[in-house]
Amino acid sequence: MAGTAGKVIRCKAAVAWEAGKPLVIEEVDVAPPQANEVRLKILFTSLCHTDVYFWEAKGQNPLFPRIYGHEAGGIVESVGEGVTDLKPGDHVLPVFTGECKECSHCKSEESNMCSLLRINTDRGVMLHDGKSRFSIKGKPIYHFVGTSTFSEYTVIHVGCLAKINPLAPLDKVCVLSCGISTGLGATLNVAKPPKGSTVAIFGLGAVGLAAAEGARIAGASRIIGVDLNSNRFEDAKKFGVTEFVNPKHHRKPVQEVIAEMTDGGVDRSVECTGNIDAMISAFECVHDGWGIAVLVGVPHKEAVFKTHPMNVLNERTLKGTFFGNYKPRTDLPSVVEKYMNKELELEKFITHSVPFSQINKAFELMLKGESLRCIIRMEG
Amino acid sequence: MAGTAGKVIRCKAAVAWEAGKPLVIEEVDVAPPQANEVRLKILFTSLCHTDVYFWEAKGQNPLFPRIYGHEAGGIVESVGEGVTDLKPGDHVLPVFTGECKECSHCKSEESNMCSLLRINTDRGVMLHDGKSRFSIKGKPIYHFVGTSTFSEYTVIHVGCLAKINPLAPLDKVCVLSCGISTGLGATLNVAKPPKGSTVAIFGLGAVGLAAAEGARIAGASRIIGVDLNSNRFEDAKKFGVTEFVNPKHHRKPVQEVIAEMTDGGVDRSVECTGNIDAMISAFECVHDGWGIAVLVGVPHKEAVFKTHPMNVLNERTLKGTFFGNYKPRTDLPSVVEKYMNKELELEKFITHSVPFSQINKAFELMLKGESLRCIIRMEG
Repeated sequence: MAGTAGKVIRCKAAVAWEAGKPLVIEEVDVAPPQANEVRLKILFTSLCHTDVYFWEAKGQNPLFPRIYGHEAGGIVESVGEGVTDLKPGDHVLPVFTGECKECSHCKSEESNMCSLLRINTDRGVMLHDGKSRFSIKGKPIYHFVGTSTFSEYTVIHVGCLAKINPLAPLDKVCVLSCGISTGLGATLNVAKPPKGSTVAIFGLGAVGLAAAEGARIAGASRIIGVDLNSNRFEDAKKFGVTEFVNPKHHRKPVQEVIAEMTDGGVDRSVECTGNIDAMISAFECVHDGWGIAVLVGVPHKEAVFKTHPMNVLNERTLKGTFFGNYKPRTDLPSVVEKYMNKELELEKFITHSVPFSQINKAFELMLKGESLRCIIRMEG
Repeated sequence: MAGTAGKVIRCKAAVAWEAGKPLVIEEVDVAPPQANEVRLKILFTSLCHTDVYFWEAKGQNPLFPRIYGHEAGGIVESVGEGVTDLKPGDHVLPVFTGECKECSHCKSEESNMCSLLRINTDRGVMLHDGKSRFSIKGKPIYHFVGTSTFSEYTVIHVGCLAKINPLAPLDKVCVLSCGISTGLGATLNVAKPPKGSTVAIFGLGAVGLAAAEGARIAGASRIIGVDLNSNRFEDAKKFGVTEFVNPKHHRKPVQEVIAEMTDGGVDRSVECTGNIDAMISAFECVHDGWGIAVLVGVPHKEAVFKTHPMNVLNERTLKGTFFGNYKPRTDLPSVVEKYMNKELELEKFITHSVPFSQINKAFELMLKGESLRCIIRMEG
């Protein structure tokens, strides 16, 4: 046990005081972990669109002051009552969703949508007592999706922590905590393209490129990238993308363009934009008889998915996935191993790196669309 | 070879001269089979909704005079050039769709939507030469879906004939030629309910009851039948249905009623009505995380399937199927074996039987909703 166990730790955290305003590095008090909780030292965290989306607070209930951050790698500092799976010194990846191992979802072989720990973006407190573990001068600061990794120390439910190989470099594998696993798993676990098959990827941001990386690993023969921004095409080649379609350059709907390129449609498609029209195109561009479309991107609240039912009846399959269908505790360690044995390449996703003091620069890079993943180094 | 091989056969057929008018038993000439065609003697045929639908010709291009019928059992009389898989005397089931064994669909493990022989309800002639094999006094009579089994003899492409166990009683297994296989395969091949799972079946006509029979065979623990006609509930029990929901008896949408009955949704659903609202309910009533909905019923041309994309993203799967995903030649013989080894019960689907001379009675029974399957005996 560290000397800090059971005591409040005062450390630096990047606090969002208001929607859309630069984060402020503050001294915060981090309370000890309660039952089924773990306090960990964050070594590296990275920025994901979801952080930016909730920080902007344009579409949801604002909850401030709050500590964002959910992609990270850290080391267990101390554990609360009842925690037996983890001990101080263990290397972990925090995850915005969880795995209680006891609900019907966790017991199902197929689902990873844990009833207890499923993502809840409205909750800013810990499940155990409905309170925050963060405070400044006694005033609570809200948590974000149970992780709040923009802090040197944070407290997380044990069900939201994946124990990983301690030899894995946390400055690389931290990106598996959310976006990269989401895209990779959508392809490897859900679309499951057979070797030699054709795959269309809608949206070539980090999640879409991770989906392409999954298609590359699966041995797809053609990987067609679809994006409204042609500047993304050159970089996408590194992720196995072989052909590109910019829907703006065609008069026909993109599903027809793809059908013509592939003699009737691709074998698999993965939709990573959240745009409803892209979702419909992604479904309608798969081949009848065997095509499978997988939706990953989170849609607008009022969006409606519409298609002629014959598109379904002609033996197309539509599936949705959440966090790449990975169960955080059970499955994430094996994704880290895919990186360790060089099957999965992570370096190409990491385009930038900044010290914690410059965390706002990571936000700027993402808002400008210049970064895929920017690593934030907590020390230095 | 029968003495009739290579010659025109004059026999009785039930000709539809006009939309919706009673069929007339006529003497027709049946030309010998051409390349890749087979002439067979029909022993038993049964009536399916699709025959009635196209005979009524309310929604499609009318094509008359025409010989309907596509569910049947027969014996090969003679074969055309290039036919090596079948010989005179073989017992066969004609199928409205086919399996050429050479196209990308036939070569795919997943699809049964043969590019060459896929159902085409607008075509009234043979593929080989664009002509009919039926005529009355030299005037051609159109074929229907490549089968036209309402005739003592008919000519069918070899790819649309399943060679079956000659010990199988044709007056029973003829119903496997279309509807029963469609429902059964939707459950067994596509929905694939695990043993002990919950299944909802929308529509308790012959196809829906066959889907229920599939769920019974798969070992489902609860089979919830959904139908607007409560009279169907008592009979449905014979097919394994354990509970019933009549949407008219509830104020809430049926998907909510089912979710309440099943702690969040059924594991599988199979939609056999073709009604667009039922399709949407069937999709939305499956459990998040693992639920699979399978669409079977053929929709109206203008129907639009609409759902909130979060229903997909929450790890539900929507699939469509055609003829229960059975490849006619490869798979149908094994369905016949399921009946032979008493795994599958067919007798309960056969509610009526009439001699060929009373074929119009079979139409009346179906239009009144009194029959599931009425067998038409060609001899007698």
